[in-house]
Amino acid sequence: MSTTDSQSSPEALAALPLRENLRGLSPYGAPQLDVPVTLNTNENTHPVPDEVVRAITASVAESAVSLNRYPDREFTELRQRLAEYLGHGLSGSQLWAANGSNEILQQLLQAFGGPGRTVMGFPPTYSMYPLLAAGTDTRYQAGVRGEDFSLTAESAAAQVAEHRPNLVLLCSPNNPTGTALGLDVVEAVYRASEDHQGMVIVDEAYAEFALSGTRSALSLLPGRPRLVVTRTMSKAFALAGARLGYLAAAPEVTDALRLVRLPYHLSAVSQATANAALQHYDVLLETVEDIKRQRDRIVDGLLELGLEPAVSDSNFVFFGGLEDAQQTWQALLERGVLVRDVGIAHHLRVTAGTQAETTAFLDALRAVRTGT
Amino acid sequence: MSTTDSQSSPEALAALPLRENLRGLSPYGAPQLDVPVTLNTNENTHPVPDEVVRAITASVAESAVSLNRYPDREFTELRQRLAEYLGHGLSGSQLWAANGSNEILQQLLQAFGGPGRTVMGFPPTYSMYPLLAAGTDTRYQAGVRGEDFSLTAESAAAQVAEHRPNLVLLCSPNNPTGTALGLDVVEAVYRASEDHQGMVIVDEAYAEFALSGTRSALSLLPGRPRLVVTRTMSKAFALAGARLGYLAAAPEVTDALRLVRLPYHLSAVSQATANAALQHYDVLLETVEDIKRQRDRIVDGLLELGLEPAVSDSNFVFFGGLEDAQQTWQALLERGVLVRDVGIAHHLRVTAGTQAETTAFLDALRAVRTGT
Repeated sequence: MSTTDSQSSPEALAALPLRENLRGLSPYGAPQLDVPVTLNTNENTHPVPDEVVRAITASVAESAVSLNRYPDREFTELRQRLAEYLGHGLSGSQLWAANGSNEILQQLLQAFGGPGRTVMGFPPTYSMYPLLAAGTDTRYQAGVRGEDFSLTAESAAAQVAEHRPNLVLLCSPNNPTGTALGLDVVEAVYRASEDHQGMVIVDEAYAEFALSGTRSALSLLPGRPRLVVTRTMSKAFALAGARLGYLAAAPEVTDALRLVRLPYHLSAVSQATANAALQHYDVLLETVEDIKRQRDRIVDGLLELGLEPAVSDSNFVFFGGLEDAQQTWQALLERGVLVRDVGIAHHLRVTAGTQAETTAFLDALRAVRTGT
Repeated sequence: MSTTDSQSSPEALAALPLRENLRGLSPYGAPQLDVPVTLNTNENTHPVPDEVVRAITASVAESAVSLNRYPDREFTELRQRLAEYLGHGLSGSQLWAANGSNEILQQLLQAFGGPGRTVMGFPPTYSMYPLLAAGTDTRYQAGVRGEDFSLTAESAAAQVAEHRPNLVLLCSPNNPTGTALGLDVVEAVYRASEDHQGMVIVDEAYAEFALSGTRSALSLLPGRPRLVVTRTMSKAFALAGARLGYLAAAPEVTDALRLVRLPYHLSAVSQATANAALQHYDVLLETVEDIKRQRDRIVDGLLELGLEPAVSDSNFVFFGGLEDAQQTWQALLERGVLVRDVGIAHHLRVTAGTQAETTAFLDALRAVRTGT
């Protein structure tokens, strides 16, 4: 099975008048391999519950009759429902949605980044950040983390004060390491951005999986007009296929995004799907507790095998202590388990799947480690 | 009813660190007014037929169970179906789709435009072109048309040879004027772009409404690797709410777009909707002949009223000869008919609706013109 989606020869592509910064690049994306246990893209591996499938179907059926009309470009009902779901006293005017949180981040970069501007991230972090920066001609400034991939308030604030980026991307829980940031880090970065009026974006794609007691950056929004919290329905909501990312921020941030969003960017079908899902979010979120249990099983299993899992507030576990990560990745694949090699030596990342998938992963890894 | 979607005060928006080229702008979009007859956005005003609603519903229901998984990022089935629909010997590797043809155009500008590069259009034309250029930091070079808004092969080629743009956007049938370009214009512009290796994009959003005998630029694709033809399911397919734009080009063009598209940009629900619709395209396109009849009725009615309709190959009519276009727009609105003021003195644009809507428009305009 091919791991490339390419449709033409490299020569034919090179003959096109591509932008210089795209020459020689390969498309982003995990290999799409057909294996029994796929734990490589941090999907929620639980199928959508019947009750929600029925609700989505009914909602789409209702909207399909008038698909000849452009959708509500303000997706008013969806914004209202997202505000209700998030709580924290938010109103629909503070919500915004797009086709996946990647499009949310792209719109933020189009509005506040661009040529001559800088966005700062702290690798290892979500690997799309530098690609989104390149796609909007925003300079990407890579900050640094501690040896253990942690990021303290003091260090983050000092780096932001030094580089004065127009935007800061804080991923919490961080992908691929899985650990949430304390709100003191967000507060310190916001303070350090006051002087140069920088935007601070907290990417909470995995927030619903956080360890109990973890506070969301949503609680910091009041009084902080340049703070943005992004979320997604891809993970805890088990709706990766629906591509629904969203954000909460001051109402003027959503007005800024109205200047760069494509007209009617969110289809009536996407709106109908998300609205139906949000009416049943309690059912959808029922899998979250099970996923957290499987995640904790993975952490325990890895420790038993003498490996080094990071603290995980998400639906995946990042772990070190491997002699050869690529070799382990390959050996797991040969046993029908696909995990993610994120390109960090001695480390791999695995999604917490169902009970059976988690068992399959732990059994396969044990076999690989013990050579059985 | 408000015609603005703004959620905050102008002062709050101005206090954000917006990019300089966005300051003071207003969001793109026709006023969304609640009037009986809306003929302002060139939608297909015929509701989606029951048979297609059922097919879309069944297709989405099937896909909803696995919405927890990311969609096929290659939308292989959809590309195959689009190729079959277009004919012209096209294969799936030559097709590409996105959330509306605006996203298609944005991706083309991200791949081939950008800072230091130029895209050329010929106003009056689709008003999103300069906005998409600004959104990707591509310089927009406005070409010129004849007094009657026509564009000859000789004139277009000479202007392209002079300005050497990295991309040319040819809208055919042109929006807002409605007239298709002869293929001689496309051929001449492509030849004029050979020397500087420019991309030539023919935007055929309204192609299915063309007068009989009009050839599509799809027939020019063989042997022209820098030619791109864009289409949409929003108009003839009556699926504006589904946001499904697409293009046909050499396979290496789709590879170039793989470098800039957001991962999994096309949701599983969008793919399911479009796949179902394409299985019933004969039913969906049945409205096209009726719409063409209504368009021709509009042209005849306008001539009777002493007005000056342009030749229309689309589902709308652009007409001149008004003393005060804004005043006529307002008078029609007061009679419950919403048309589009495209900002060209003495002209308005009206979408060909159903028989009843078309009658309502002609009656209202007659009343306005005769002062009854």
